[in-house]
Amino acid sequence: MNKFEEKTIHSQEIFNGKIIKLQVDEVKLPNGKMAKREIVKHPGAVGIIPITSDGKILMVEQFRKPLERSLLEIPAGKLEQGEEPDITAARELEEETGFRANQLDYLTSFYTAPGFSDEVIHLYIATDLEKVENPLPGDEDEFVDLLEVDLESAATFVDEKRIYDAKTAYAVLYLQMKKVLG
Amino acid sequence: MNKFEEKTIHSQEIFNGKIIKLQVDEVKLPNGKMAKREIVKHPGAVGIIPITSDGKILMVEQFRKPLERSLLEIPAGKLEQGEEPDITAARELEEETGFRANQLDYLTSFYTAPGFSDEVIHLYIATDLEKVENPLPGDEDEFVDLLEVDLESAATFVDEKRIYDAKTAYAVLYLQMKKVLG
Repeated sequence: MNKFEEKTIHSQEIFNGKIIKLQVDEVKLPNGKMAKREIVKHPGAVGIIPITSDGKILMVEQFRKPLERSLLEIPAGKLEQGEEPDITAARELEEETGFRANQLDYLTSFYTAPGFSDEVIHLYIATDLEKVENPLPGDEDEFVDLLEVDLESAATFVDEKRIYDAKTAYAVLYLQMKKVLG
Repeated sequence: MNKFEEKTIHSQEIFNGKIIKLQVDEVKLPNGKMAKREIVKHPGAVGIIPITSDGKILMVEQFRKPLERSLLEIPAGKLEQGEEPDITAARELEEETGFRANQLDYLTSFYTAPGFSDEVIHLYIATDLEKVENPLPGDEDEFVDLLEVDLESAATFVDEKRIYDAKTAYAVLYLQMKKVLG
């Protein structure tokens, strides 16, 4: 797991923000030479695939400032400090959709951008959903639209690039696979 | 595509590095309130799924400083300025594996971390591979091991978290799907 390890000689913090930190590490390469690594530290996140009783996926549409456009995504959110991912998953599901899941199953995890960031996403499948009367409020600065999407429409939205992020693309492919397997 | 648009009131560049840039934008929300957005600009990247004549996937193992560990990934690399993704894909395949593809097909694209970055990855499938006698040299500061991985081993590596990044997880799931479909 440490093949070609790069030893940190010096680490400089460039930015410490609300969500991310940026540091530049000076590292010693396996051949003894030096190089710089630009590293974005992120607390990690969860993504939830909520499936309704009639087999639709609950998705949220929101504006993504880095892209200057909105995307249709599975509900997601970052881990609060010290929070276990399954707690984050339940919380974000309720905040973003107004639903609670009686069944929440861990699916998989992956690093999103290992070349420059340590962000990891933990994916969950939420089923046996129940509408909450007074759901947890979402973040003050977050505006989302809730949509019920069937698998066929999801495939179309992927083609149209309305669904266009890694976790949601993975989720759609995973559900297609499940359907093929019956 | 611009639902809940957030208008930039002020943008401050924090860092302009070799690979990424960091900026903090002050934005006006749909409700008129203000918020800050931390944004990592990235030139975009490609990932290539190289399939050998006997159906194995060529993967590279490399140290990922942000994670302080090595990962087994499909070959990948970032776009040089003005470079078309299919050119990048051919170049990175040769640099990282020493193979050229007589057939290079575009599969899909996705944003890796739309919450804080504009990085997009374009995925290609490379087949009809040919060993190059004097392949393009890789980046000076990049050390990679080349492995041939069959689909069954790939599934095991996913379980073992040796394969643990979004593009490679997607690639493995995609190939499993193809296999199921025959």
